[in-house]
Amino acid sequence: MTLLRRRKTRRLFALTMLMTGVLMLFANLAYAQGDEHSLSDLAISINTMWVLIAGFLVFFMQAGFGFLEAGFVRSKNVVNIMAENFLDTTMTTIGFWAAGFGIMFGSGTPFFGTEWFFLSGLPEEINGLPPLAFFFFQFAFSAAASTIASGLMAERTDFRADLIYSFLVGLVIYPVVGHWIWASDGWLAGMGFLDFAGSTVVHLVGALVGLAGTLVLGKRIDKEFGKTIRGHNIPLAAIGTFILWLGWFGFNPGSTLGATDVNAIALIVLNTDFAATTGAIVAIFLSYAYTGKWDVSMAFNGSLAGLVAITAPCAFVTPTMALLIGAIAGVLVYYGVDLMETLKIDDPVGAFPVHGINGIFGTLAIGLFATDGGLFYGGGFAQLGVQLVGVLAAIAYVFPISLLMFYIIKKTVGLRVEENIERAGIDGFYHGIASYPEFTPGAYSLPTKEYPGQQVSVLEKSS
Amino acid sequence: MTLLRRRKTRRLFALTMLMTGVLMLFANLAYAQGDEHSLSDLAISINTMWVLIAGFLVFFMQAGFGFLEAGFVRSKNVVNIMAENFLDTTMTTIGFWAAGFGIMFGSGTPFFGTEWFFLSGLPEEINGLPPLAFFFFQFAFSAAASTIASGLMAERTDFRADLIYSFLVGLVIYPVVGHWIWASDGWLAGMGFLDFAGSTVVHLVGALVGLAGTLVLGKRIDKEFGKTIRGHNIPLAAIGTFILWLGWFGFNPGSTLGATDVNAIALIVLNTDFAATTGAIVAIFLSYAYTGKWDVSMAFNGSLAGLVAITAPCAFVTPTMALLIGAIAGVLVYYGVDLMETLKIDDPVGAFPVHGINGIFGTLAIGLFATDGGLFYGGGFAQLGVQLVGVLAAIAYVFPISLLMFYIIKKTVGLRVEENIERAGIDGFYHGIASYPEFTPGAYSLPTKEYPGQQVSVLEKSS
Amino acid sequence: MTLLRRRKTRRLFALTMLMTGVLMLFANLAYAQGDEHSLSDLAISINTMWVLIAGFLVFFMQAGFGFLEAGFVRSKNVVNIMAENFLDTTMTTIGFWAAGFGIMFGSGTPFFGTEWFFLSGLPEEINGLPPLAFFFFQFAFSAAASTIASGLMAERTDFRADLIYSFLVGLVIYPVVGHWIWASDGWLAGMGFLDFAGSTVVHLVGALVGLAGTLVLGKRIDKEFGKTIRGHNIPLAAIGTFILWLGWFGFNPGSTLGATDVNAIALIVLNTDFAATTGAIVAIFLSYAYTGKWDVSMAFNGSLAGLVAITAPCAFVTPTMALLIGAIAGVLVYYGVDLMETLKIDDPVGAFPVHGINGIFGTLAIGLFATDGGLFYGGGFAQLGVQLVGVLAAIAYVFPISLLMFYIIKKTVGLRVEENIERAGIDGFYHGIASYPEFTPGAYSLPTKEYPGQQVSVLEKSS
Repeated sequence: MTLLRRRKTRRLFALTMLMTGVLMLFANLAYAQGDEHSLSDLAISINTMWVLIAGFLVFFMQAGFGFLEAGFVRSKNVVNIMAENFLDTTMTTIGFWAAGFGIMFGSGTPFFGTEWFFLSGLPEEINGLPPLAFFFFQFAFSAAASTIASGLMAERTDFRADLIYSFLVGLVIYPVVGHWIWASDGWLAGMGFLDFAGSTVVHLVGALVGLAGTLVLGKRIDKEFGKTIRGHNIPLAAIGTFILWLGWFGFNPGSTLGATDVNAIALIVLNTDFAATTGAIVAIFLSYAYTGKWDVSMAFNGSLAGLVAITAPCAFVTPTMALLIGAIAGVLVYYGVDLMETLKIDDPVGAFPVHGINGIFGTLAIGLFATDGGLFYGGGFAQLGVQLVGVLAAIAYVFPISLLMFYIIKKTVGLRVEENIERAGIDGFYHGIASYPEFTPGAYSLPTKEYPGQQVSVLEKSS
Repeated sequence: MTLLRRRKTRRLFALTMLMTGVLMLFANLAYAQGDEHSLSDLAISINTMWVLIAGFLVFFMQAGFGFLEAGFVRSKNVVNIMAENFLDTTMTTIGFWAAGFGIMFGSGTPFFGTEWFFLSGLPEEINGLPPLAFFFFQFAFSAAASTIASGLMAERTDFRADLIYSFLVGLVIYPVVGHWIWASDGWLAGMGFLDFAGSTVVHLVGALVGLAGTLVLGKRIDKEFGKTIRGHNIPLAAIGTFILWLGWFGFNPGSTLGATDVNAIALIVLNTDFAATTGAIVAIFLSYAYTGKWDVSMAFNGSLAGLVAITAPCAFVTPTMALLIGAIAGVLVYYGVDLMETLKIDDPVGAFPVHGINGIFGTLAIGLFATDGGLFYGGGFAQLGVQLVGVLAAIAYVFPISLLMFYIIKKTVGLRVEENIERAGIDGFYHGIASYPEFTPGAYSLPTKEYPGQQVSVLEKSS
Repeated sequence: MTLLRRRKTRRLFALTMLMTGVLMLFANLAYAQGDEHSLSDLAISINTMWVLIAGFLVFFMQAGFGFLEAGFVRSKNVVNIMAENFLDTTMTTIGFWAAGFGIMFGSGTPFFGTEWFFLSGLPEEINGLPPLAFFFFQFAFSAAASTIASGLMAERTDFRADLIYSFLVGLVIYPVVGHWIWASDGWLAGMGFLDFAGSTVVHLVGALVGLAGTLVLGKRIDKEFGKTIRGHNIPLAAIGTFILWLGWFGFNPGSTLGATDVNAIALIVLNTDFAATTGAIVAIFLSYAYTGKWDVSMAFNGSLAGLVAITAPCAFVTPTMALLIGAIAGVLVYYGVDLMETLKIDDPVGAFPVHGINGIFGTLAIGLFATDGGLFYGGGFAQLGVQLVGVLAAIAYVFPISLLMFYIIKKTVGLRVEENIERAGIDGFYHGIASYPEFTPGAYSLPTKEYPGQQVSVLEKSS
């Protein structure tokens, strides 16, 4: 106090304070403007980077689906399934760009959005991200939904039909359910329905489209129920599975739309990994228990089943519950494959048990295991009931509209390849190339001149 | 005001201010030093992370090129093409480390840099990044340039020649054009020439080297123009294409050299994806229109054509223009493949239509479609003219020097494998292993003892 | 000074100061709370994102190991090796979750940790990261260790034995050495032993487990020492190698546990790449010098040898030394493969020369080449001596305990498949599927009914 007693001292003090203030003001400006960055800006950078990198991984899942399916079909249809997966990505992009994104995330009604078509009229930001970054991440999700269906419809679908339904799934089927659940004004979102990264939105929807497709198509000519038609290339299926598992590290943690909540993203990453782990273990041990064989294709599908099942609850459950959810998914996929045989539904790659049955289970798992609101955590049946409503709503919309879509396609461009083409393999007639021309000469044996509209032999391309 | 009326009050006020000041100083220190981070530091972290991760993806493109080319050649030359792609990466690294990086980015003349050889004398930072991070990203680019050439020269090039030209491309051919365009004192940069991520710098340069190579080599013995020699493994080509598309998400957005401009990186990511999308669609639909076949290899090359074409303009055009640029690229690659047949230039994997023709188109596309300065946006012919100068300059330098390089290699170590080796396949004689020894026994049939300098049989390796 | 002379002026000044103070306080709050982010928070976000993305890449290395090994074995054992790599990941996860993580990183004794079992009792953060993010990154490392062993034991190991030892490696073998070296209270860490990213912790440990395994197993029936049994699929091995190289960009730079030290991560990334580069070049040139063949499988193993060798010293050496370390690794792996033949140790994929010999070399390389403390940098023999102690300690623990483990497995569940199964291939009998059923019909020829406990034929699965 004595310091301030004299006028001179007071002046000194005041001057010091003034200088301090000016210095601090400069320091603050240095943070805020001098660096051309603010804390907010950097947080947006971090979140955008996370979402874009996650989107790259989700995009790469298209390759994963492609190789998994290619490995699980016969060599005579490998070019076809690769072409489907590759082109599905592109056709869905066009549909999602034209209308899907707007229907899904635009404002409008509780049932669909009515803005942002063709990327027009976008706001400054969506969910705190640059709109185009958000669009990119969401486009990658839409592509996954339509590609899942191709697995159920493998080895007999007309390629033009595949292009058309992929476009329509991205344009209108997938986005409507997405709007219900992920748009702020969606009616299921309003009810408190939770689906963190898309067990229902992506996986169940894709599986329902495919289920409708396989039912309208009917079984493959060569399929005898109760017997497995083995895939032609297990390493290829392994590549697909590993890429899908990797891609899920974008799919689930990217759905936080940011990386600033570090505990959330760490939990989600670990839960994702854990569910895949126990899904694979349980499914292959079941196969060993029943058949005496360590069926690695069951391990692949088991890991994917765990990944699908943890997709909805990944942000809401503990790692221990993730291990449990994965284990249950492994059980479900094992018996699910048998169930498809019993029901005489031809699902060449096991896509419905993986994406459909476990899409449902994962969605309900929130109602069972969520730390906040789950039945087994004392939350009662309220959340579980809401989850069930969401699942039923998705089924009630997607399944009939898909049946209708495939029926119309069947009656117009045609849904299924001709019988002799199916027997010979789709690759030769539809794509003009064999998957391994030096190793599968039979793929070229089909005479192609007989078919109208096909001008050249499969072996040649006019220059 | 009354607060300050009495001396006692003033003292209290002064003390409060002093304490406030001290507290705030501490708070500021807490931001600046206490946390050991400043906003600038974190921005550098974000940018470095982005560029390194982008570099990982660009590095992985070497695998993409390798599998695409491996899938498109015959099984007897698969080990060779994999070895070329794998070793190209390493040889280019040595060349780029020794001199390429310094020539490309060092200061010196408008035509080439004259510092930073062997990473010596690096500054504290380059373009706001740790110099080694910048070097890593740029090395990955240089590797892409030299690998592109191997596609045009596939199935007949001497492996030693491949190692030598890869080294020289990274050492001196690629970096000179790079300096003109990307160094701050480059003469094309000074003219206002724009090439955001390298349609000219990487793709056109690589394609021109390869074009010179294939012209000096001549066509493959088995090649009949107007007929396609089918690749041996379509799934392998699909893996390559998917990896390349993924890698481009590093190639283009990483070229921002940072992630703090979030709207820019989001735009670039989406434009990259969109151009690939329409490139694939247009190319496969053209193939269907002309041949009645959905040629998936055309879809692969179409997507890559779109990616090459959007590489230069990705930061300067709207997403809608990216869709258009990709579509045009799809047209160009389709007719480009035919053009190579007509001109009787043997390009086994279609690398020149993809990287050369679309490298040129992508560079010119800035002059046509750039929101700022493009012809169709009212910018007149000024930018287009500058773009054309850059393309012509790159051709005028790279093509003759590459012809000279291959001519010298031809006259010294030899450029082309012997005829009977080419017929039997390069794998057995040059590499001593077959790509699929259990499935391609013919690869072992060539007697190897006859050739001087080859001490052991292909089947054995002395321990 | 005159400014403060009058009372009125003083009041004005005081008011100004007060306002400035209040404004600055607000500004500070805006940084700290208004944005809901602080600099510390963002730094943690950046570090967490880096470690998680690095973890994704390390996880993907499981695919890399899988395809490398699958490519290097014969087609009759491909499903088996893929199943091993896939399930190793999962079994190690369970072991590492149950106890491994706690033993490795928990506090306790200098020899092992005694907390954090089943992820219980985790603190708020570990090494500045969310504990689950740190766990995820470390789990991916543990999986690598156990997968390395499968390469040495390929083509003859009982699948159940593989599952058991993978679990035990993750549970207790790997974590103990990890505790010595990477836990803050580890006894080797206390001595100043350095192993930045795990040349000893991961690679030498995995190789020692595998060495014990192959010694207890004995050689494959078909193996003649001095002759190479060629892998069935070189492109598959190439995919594996490229993925591993990519994954190492997570393995080494992720081990910084953060991205805020940008110069460190840039140096580590570049060193990692450089060592792989020279490793590949030197190994393939040696193969050419000795055999006249450019053996691409040697280039693959050479790059991996360089990567293993740089893993320990990547943060402590210059890029030029990284090039040298990689080159030495290439020499070591080349002669190492011969050494295994001379010692009559059957190592089907060359895993011991890559991970064992170069794990040792990389660890010692710190003592030789570290800028701070290396012998060739004037540091004398002190660091080198400590490094040698660490290597010997790891060998003294891992090798005997692994021998014991495999001996017990051999005497209980059995370690090796029966002779006729080994001849026919493991895929058919153990896994019930062939890797390429259309191309390897022989894989189905083994009668399976004769074996007790195997209920169904390999061709059918009861629904």
